Amino acid sequence: MINETYKKMLGGKSVIRELSEYATERGKQIGYENVFDFSLGNPSVPCAPEFTETLIDFLQNKEPVALHGYSPSLGIPSVRAAVAESLNKRFDMDYKADHIFMTSGAAGAIAHALRSVTKPGDEVIVFAPFFSEYYEYVGKTGAVLKIVKADTNSFQINFDDFEAVLNPNVTAVLINTPNNPSGSVYSEETVKKLADVLRAKEKEYGHDIFIISDEPYREILFDGIKCPYISKFYDNTLSCYSFSKSLSLPGERIGYVAVSPRCTDSDILAVMFGQISRGIGHNCPASCIQLAVAEVLDKTSDLSVYEKNMNLIYDKLVSLGFEVVRPQGTFYIFPKALEEDAVAFCNKAKKYDLIVVPGNGFCCPGYFRMAYCIDTDKVIRSFDAWDKFVKTEYGVKI
Amino acid sequence: MINETYKKMLGGKSVIRELSEYATERGKQIGYENVFDFSLGNPSVPCAPEFTETLIDFLQNKEPVALHGYSPSLGIPSVRAAVAESLNKRFDMDYKADHIFMTSGAAGAIAHALRSVTKPGDEVIVFAPFFSEYYEYVGKTGAVLKIVKADTNSFQINFDDFEAVLNPNVTAVLINTPNNPSGSVYSEETVKKLADVLRAKEKEYGHDIFIISDEPYREILFDGIKCPYISKFYDNTLSCYSFSKSLSLPGERIGYVAVSPRCTDSDILAVMFGQISRGIGHNCPASCIQLAVAEVLDKTSDLSVYEKNMNLIYDKLVSLGFEVVRPQGTFYIFPKALEEDAVAFCNKAKKYDLIVVPGNGFCCPGYFRMAYCIDTDKVIRSFDAWDKFVKTEYGVKI
Repeated sequence: MINETYKKMLGGKSVIRELSEYATERGKQIGYENVFDFSLGNPSVPCAPEFTETLIDFLQNKEPVALHGYSPSLGIPSVRAAVAESLNKRFDMDYKADHIFMTSGAAGAIAHALRSVTKPGDEVIVFAPFFSEYYEYVGKTGAVLKIVKADTNSFQINFDDFEAVLNPNVTAVLINTPNNPSGSVYSEETVKKLADVLRAKEKEYGHDIFIISDEPYREILFDGIKCPYISKFYDNTLSCYSFSKSLSLPGERIGYVAVSPRCTDSDILAVMFGQISRGIGHNCPASCIQLAVAEVLDKTSDLSVYEKNMNLIYDKLVSLGFEVVRPQGTFYIFPKALEEDAVAFCNKAKKYDLIVVPGNGFCCPGYFRMAYCIDTDKVIRSFDAWDKFVKTEYGVKI
Repeated sequence: MINETYKKMLGGKSVIRELSEYATERGKQIGYENVFDFSLGNPSVPCAPEFTETLIDFLQNKEPVALHGYSPSLGIPSVRAAVAESLNKRFDMDYKADHIFMTSGAAGAIAHALRSVTKPGDEVIVFAPFFSEYYEYVGKTGAVLKIVKADTNSFQINFDDFEAVLNPNVTAVLINTPNNPSGSVYSEETVKKLADVLRAKEKEYGHDIFIISDEPYREILFDGIKCPYISKFYDNTLSCYSFSKSLSLPGERIGYVAVSPRCTDSDILAVMFGQISRGIGHNCPASCIQLAVAEVLDKTSDLSVYEKNMNLIYDKLVSLGFEVVRPQGTFYIFPKALEEDAVAFCNKAKKYDLIVVPGNGFCCPGYFRMAYCIDTDKVIRSFDAWDKFVKTEYGVKI
């Protein structure tokens, strides 16, 4: 009696993963250094050395039963307190340890946040373009994903379409800024307007609407820009964070939900997350990783390569005539394809060993995503291929 | 719009946790060394030193981007291959890497196993006494938990009641041997009979019935006994394992599901687990923990203290006139209380600073659980308290 729902999902391979596997296979033929693989959002810089040093120190000197012992289901108390303190200092918030719930990365964080403030049948709004896993994150809770069309001029929020999509069934809005795949950062103006609209709708509908804020790229910002901290603008906010990108620890699966101290039921939400965990088999992140990360909360890996790569790629694409919104953070860029069908565009690019991802999976057809968390040398070496590609396929004059 | 289902769960605190918290509070008054805390099943011995050495070596010498990089969603291929090889050697199986799915401990393993072979409305049978979290593990998938009464003579299986509970809606049976809380190990005879019954019912009902085998205590065995490996006896078996107990790494949340190569759809189940993960926010266990554990799969912590403690406690309880089935493994014992109401019994024990857990939560009222993963010295020091307790409260002659 194999579960048919999951069995049917077996065909649905992620386009990103397919392209990444193609790049690996192609690499076996021509050398991976010659495949310009912009498919995967996998941090390319080493983790902060302080993390490694701390973990080695703990393994050498801490009592193993304590170091590797069960974490309480909401996270290790000292770690929760340290996260609260770091957030308070950085974002002028007033979190207590009780507002922090440690999770297995941002995916674990969003799984709890969604289940806590929606019930099956409720609607959850997302803004295109968005990370394609949101379909599963939301859909498998029983809630219904509602999509607001992209504002392709700036990749801020398309407020006209937002107002059209809003209705009394909406109980949560899932946002992602800095944004995968566009690299855009919601401006203070955007966030204020979003908050104003939601507050008005809460009043109109007579119930809470939570913002679930997916923030793993919070520390990767360009041109000296600041990323508005959502909880400062809207009380009913659950901030979902992962250290995957800031500390380059994607495999260690460590993150948290920070419950705004001013949201509805702020005093019980983290405890509710603990109950949710029991039903979905979520466990705290690994104890020794929790303890080590708590010592380096305000550190990051050397993230400068991402801005360097962005500048090179942005200038190159503009010089080739692409329409492209300049990324303000992350390690993605999301240009308009040179033909309407971005899938066809990306397939043609493959002939030049340029591996880029069509925007369709991000619910924004006609665009394509490049992840530039790769060596700068490879970025530069890709430019000849770009020249050949756009000249041959689209007659662009070089 | 806080989710009311989870909000209502807030009152339902685990009795074990309540008792453990009481023990901690009491410890603040009289010194924790004077509280005979048998409440929590938390390993008391340090992890295998080889684990620590391996992880330090990796942190010092492996390339950080590889060590801490994303694990594929089914687990790191080399780790899956190593687990398969170890199981094949130890249990004469023929697993391939493709049959192994790495999980966040046994809870993560069971969450995937259940969802893969049941659908909402299906029935899942468990045998009393059982770990109380099974209510949430099963109930939150939408399946219905059906309980077979305990065989209190031996804590094997009550086959009469099993036959009475079986019906065409049953698609899975969740077993736990060596057993928490009884410490019993299902004999080869029990396992063979269980397999025979299930095979007959599969035929009768015309559909698969899977055994989900929860095996975290597989390596903690006493008196030289062997624990039959369930997949050897029944093809439709999903083995759920955790390294929490064998390696004393409960906080590191590392385990796996091993899909029997002879079960229905054995070639696709692990891939299905990967799809299930997307919906419940499960992530692979931490990469560096996966890699380190793969190097010490056949090691264990020094587990001898558990058998030593069992012998002392068993002999003491028998000498005091308790009816008790001798544990064959785990670090639990499950004696009959000296009055019908085990909750009252455990409350009276608290007066003597003996913290033991009533069997009600394990669906076996009238019994109580002692976890003896504590120092042997404390076990011995508790005996005076036991003497006083049973003499004063129940008139037992010492």
